[in-house]
Amino acid sequence: MQQEHGDILMTTVSNVRVGVVGLGRLGKRHAQNLAYRVPGASLVAACSPLEDELEWARSALPAPRLYRDYAALLEDREVDAVWLVTPSALHAQQIVDALHAGKHVFCEKPLSLDVAECERVLAEAGRYPHLRVTIGFMRRFDPSYRDAFERIEKGGIGRPFMVRSQTCDKNDPEGFFVRFAPTSGGIFLDCSVHDIDVARWLLGNPRATRVFASGTVALHEGLREFGASRTMAHGNDTGSEVIGTAGSLAIGRIPSLNRVEIADAGGVRTECTPTFFERFEDAFLCEAQAFVAAVQGGAQAGATLADALEATRIGSAMRASLASGQPVVL
Amino acid sequence: MQQEHGDILMTTVSNVRVGVVGLGRLGKRHAQNLAYRVPGASLVAACSPLEDELEWARSALPAPRLYRDYAALLEDREVDAVWLVTPSALHAQQIVDALHAGKHVFCEKPLSLDVAECERVLAEAGRYPHLRVTIGFMRRFDPSYRDAFERIEKGGIGRPFMVRSQTCDKNDPEGFFVRFAPTSGGIFLDCSVHDIDVARWLLGNPRATRVFASGTVALHEGLREFGASRTMAHGNDTGSEVIGTAGSLAIGRIPSLNRVEIADAGGVRTECTPTFFERFEDAFLCEAQAFVAAVQGGAQAGATLADALEATRIGSAMRASLASGQPVVL
Amino acid sequence: MQQEHGDILMTTVSNVRVGVVGLGRLGKRHAQNLAYRVPGASLVAACSPLEDELEWARSALPAPRLYRDYAALLEDREVDAVWLVTPSALHAQQIVDALHAGKHVFCEKPLSLDVAECERVLAEAGRYPHLRVTIGFMRRFDPSYRDAFERIEKGGIGRPFMVRSQTCDKNDPEGFFVRFAPTSGGIFLDCSVHDIDVARWLLGNPRATRVFASGTVALHEGLREFGASRTMAHGNDTGSEVIGTAGSLAIGRIPSLNRVEIADAGGVRTECTPTFFERFEDAFLCEAQAFVAAVQGGAQAGATLADALEATRIGSAMRASLASGQPVVL
Amino acid sequence: MQQEHGDILMTTVSNVRVGVVGLGRLGKRHAQNLAYRVPGASLVAACSPLEDELEWARSALPAPRLYRDYAALLEDREVDAVWLVTPSALHAQQIVDALHAGKHVFCEKPLSLDVAECERVLAEAGRYPHLRVTIGFMRRFDPSYRDAFERIEKGGIGRPFMVRSQTCDKNDPEGFFVRFAPTSGGIFLDCSVHDIDVARWLLGNPRATRVFASGTVALHEGLREFGASRTMAHGNDTGSEVIGTAGSLAIGRIPSLNRVEIADAGGVRTECTPTFFERFEDAFLCEAQAFVAAVQGGAQAGATLADALEATRIGSAMRASLASGQPVVL
Repeated sequence: MQQEHGDILMTTVSNVRVGVVGLGRLGKRHAQNLAYRVPGASLVAACSPLEDELEWARSALPAPRLYRDYAALLEDREVDAVWLVTPSALHAQQIVDALHAGKHVFCEKPLSLDVAECERVLAEAGRYPHLRVTIGFMRRFDPSYRDAFERIEKGGIGRPFMVRSQTCDKNDPEGFFVRFAPTSGGIFLDCSVHDIDVARWLLGNPRATRVFASGTVALHEGLREFGASRTMAHGNDTGSEVIGTAGSLAIGRIPSLNRVEIADAGGVRTECTPTFFERFEDAFLCEAQAFVAAVQGGAQAGATLADALEATRIGSAMRASLASGQPVVL
Repeated sequence: MQQEHGDILMTTVSNVRVGVVGLGRLGKRHAQNLAYRVPGASLVAACSPLEDELEWARSALPAPRLYRDYAALLEDREVDAVWLVTPSALHAQQIVDALHAGKHVFCEKPLSLDVAECERVLAEAGRYPHLRVTIGFMRRFDPSYRDAFERIEKGGIGRPFMVRSQTCDKNDPEGFFVRFAPTSGGIFLDCSVHDIDVARWLLGNPRATRVFASGTVALHEGLREFGASRTMAHGNDTGSEVIGTAGSLAIGRIPSLNRVEIADAGGVRTECTPTFFERFEDAFLCEAQAFVAAVQGGAQAGATLADALEATRIGSAMRASLASGQPVVL
Repeated sequence: MQQEHGDILMTTVSNVRVGVVGLGRLGKRHAQNLAYRVPGASLVAACSPLEDELEWARSALPAPRLYRDYAALLEDREVDAVWLVTPSALHAQQIVDALHAGKHVFCEKPLSLDVAECERVLAEAGRYPHLRVTIGFMRRFDPSYRDAFERIEKGGIGRPFMVRSQTCDKNDPEGFFVRFAPTSGGIFLDCSVHDIDVARWLLGNPRATRVFASGTVALHEGLREFGASRTMAHGNDTGSEVIGTAGSLAIGRIPSLNRVEIADAGGVRTECTPTFFERFEDAFLCEAQAFVAAVQGGAQAGATLADALEATRIGSAMRASLASGQPVVL
Repeated sequence: MQQEHGDILMTTVSNVRVGVVGLGRLGKRHAQNLAYRVPGASLVAACSPLEDELEWARSALPAPRLYRDYAALLEDREVDAVWLVTPSALHAQQIVDALHAGKHVFCEKPLSLDVAECERVLAEAGRYPHLRVTIGFMRRFDPSYRDAFERIEKGGIGRPFMVRSQTCDKNDPEGFFVRFAPTSGGIFLDCSVHDIDVARWLLGNPRATRVFASGTVALHEGLREFGASRTMAHGNDTGSEVIGTAGSLAIGRIPSLNRVEIADAGGVRTECTPTFFERFEDAFLCEAQAFVAAVQGGAQAGATLADALEATRIGSAMRASLASGQPVVL
């Protein structure tokens, strides 16, 4: 169920030379997309402090220059853009460093867990208007979300006034994510930040004035201090609903793995996407294509630093609301 | 709704150098996949007798060598494999010529509209066991069909004993396809041939013993002599159902365009894939990846010449059955 | 998922006094509907040769007069209409006898397994134009089938030209139905006869000119001589599809038990109706209401004897076609 | 999509003689159910101050005794139970009056818009333990909700810890409901009160400790002072989702009118239930059957006065929360 990506128009514009930073599971995915599936991009460099990740890069990528050190990669004159898939706590400074080095930047979400730091990055980026900076809210590039956005823009549901949105991972009894939780920023800045961005985007970027958050820890006690939950038995269940004055749209109501319906003694069922990797494979690819097109002279595509600041501002307020039990006025 | 394509493993195997032949709408799609999205493939040549298609190749592809003449392309020593997206009537001879020139061959379906010609190609191909020949029954590479195939293989529905399958294009009031019909081979060899192949594949390649066909011309009188129909109002509605002794599988029951559900005064609806291009975008890509992997030493993937012969044999019998009103014993 | 049955309008018309004949599982259902859920009907008599069925009638029905013998019931002056839920082999003669006794008749399908016998009943009924005779093709009263019928009548899908329809029971490993098969008339006259009637009804009663049947015995060897199959693992899967020149309708594509979707480790599923009892509960009730309204002076509702004759004619031809492997011209 | 109502067992228990009070649209529905579709019930009386409603009762019901005055009906010794379908503001006092008169009571929701008044009714009812009082939260009798409840009881989704639930009417541009709003109690006590009851019921009646409400007026300015909304374009969209530690259940995710899927130029769609009447037709009937069975000696079925008090308590707190913008601790 994907829409045509559209014809690929090649021009005489020279390729964007990309250096990917961070080669964890998601970094590998980005690197492969940039290496093999994005017209106009050349993956020329990769950076990781981990030897096994560099080893993977040697065997799986088309001979990029490899760096252990981010500063060294930034000195590489043959790199036009950096692609940051690093721990959230590093994003802000790495973006600023890349701008100082004259590189375009794609950075995974969130921009930062700290609102002031987000603001500092915005201020700094304002000094480099010729450089592109995009934060990886990839849901904006998912064909279904994009279709919904375009319907709303054309007035298909009248005036949209409400969004319901969730980002729910499949339960992993082994609890890897519990160990990851302390540095993730908590459920609001790690997961729900996507929903926050989607809601702003689909509602036409209204100014958030008040937030309220409520939650429980149902399965994993280790998540208690972070207020998070990860309990879906059936898969990664990520979807949104937009309600307007003349209609409504549901995106991803059932997270079907594919187009197969299985009829057996349990009834009729469809299996579900186990992780966001399967669910958003197309989105990650479209996102990379759009960024490269933007660097080559196209329009800004995807979330700006200002969008990312706003998402962090709202997510932080939600975290505060969960802790206090009170609404937070922005 | 697509499954992960799996990790892309790069080895030291050198790239397969491909020359695409025929640059119509589908040829362009194949060419772009081979040029930009298939690891291990290099699109090094393209061939078309039409100037505008060559012009497109100059601007949209990465500088392939261009040929007006198929024979000239076959003489290109730097081409390892040809990719035939030409009119059906040319397939058989072009395959034989390619084999004679020592090229691997991917050829769009059908192999030929004529059973005897199919047999001649098989006999010829038997002399070149080191060369790969695959016929483009791309549905075998669609992630949903593949999932169904694997479930069946694992015994998920017991013994499969019945397949229902359809290939229905969206109605086009302008009737372009009516003009195309005389050379298409008719509905059975042009469209249903996919269903024939799917049925054989999902049922474990039983030997067909008898066919019966029935049909009507509901909308386009110009199709009368070809027995075809093309009337779906909602989109390309292509799907299959496999019934087994312990369960059943439906593949593509509703040809949803994407994951958006629209609620408006008409109820709740999902829009549908307008053509097979959107429906099978992933399948075409996976097909190309599998062929290249096979040429590089992997297992045969996709339909063999023997499969294609059998599909033509059954499709021809169905055509005869429609004409006579009687079952045809094979 | 049911449509409103509409307001119940009561007039001064006196109640139709009904005698039900046959109190097996389906007979009980009819009896309860007539006793408690059909305005305008009074269940005044019941007939069965079996003591336990009469015992059930004593405890579960509102004091009807009980008969062991059909002839005795026919002599009951206080009975206006008989409701036959008896073995198929008895239907024809029991209808004729009821007409001779001046009773309206509702009779379960099929009218008869024998075309000549059907014709004899029609001829006899022609002599009693003031008496209503309806054959219980209850699918015509299912709210979803009725909705489809009305959409087609209003031109909603243009000219309908194809119906696909199936009646598939859930597999019962114990094989009760195998013992029932010899007297059922076989799959075409027992089950598919519903599909035949639905197809005729939804297509506007075209004259059938040719039939072809094909089948296999996949699970129950005991059904071999009757050509039947009963293999669905998930439930009673009964549905139809009508394709027209401007759209299509699918009725009952997934036989969901109710509106609950269950998300668990197997994905997202809905359980299915185990038997036709749950699937067609509303239809049986609406059917009874319509028959009573017709007897009270309304229009004929449901299948006529002529419809039932045609269904038997087509079903018999299908049985012959399955046996011969050849199409049968009607 | 309904489950079998189960066999109807008749015993020698004498019929419950019911008097229905209030014959508006919903009152008529209850009256018809009680008159014709509920074994064990006799509709013997009806009460309305409106002449046209009494006129309707004369023609549509089986000769009940008619009253203009509720007090007069209560004096009718041949009435065992009253069935209150009157304006919400009258419920509390009418229940108390009925208890004083020795009648069992079925009363439509809500019990009262005022918590203190609810408590007064509970106190009064405590003095009549032999009389049944049930408040009409009919969703507890909807076959799908009941199925969900039973799955949860059996542990099918582990420990349920979250319910999402909505009650959304189809938009009516004429705005009848705007005029009705001032006396309805507002969205929380009129509509969401069902969701409150469903959440308590499906979660095992936990004690509510805190509520927070948020809302907007999107379409009907006349609703502003009542905080309500009624904007669904596609129909009455009423559903719930229950999330547990081992799975989740969605009830009524798409409010399909029936089992028909329509494929046309807009895609594939299903029409939706226009009002709660079609959606909950079965629930109203099952509810009446259960009440009558309870009066005849069965277990309490449906919501008790204590449940209704709790629903009003929570709904009132939500109304206060919406007004203040702050959470309300209970």
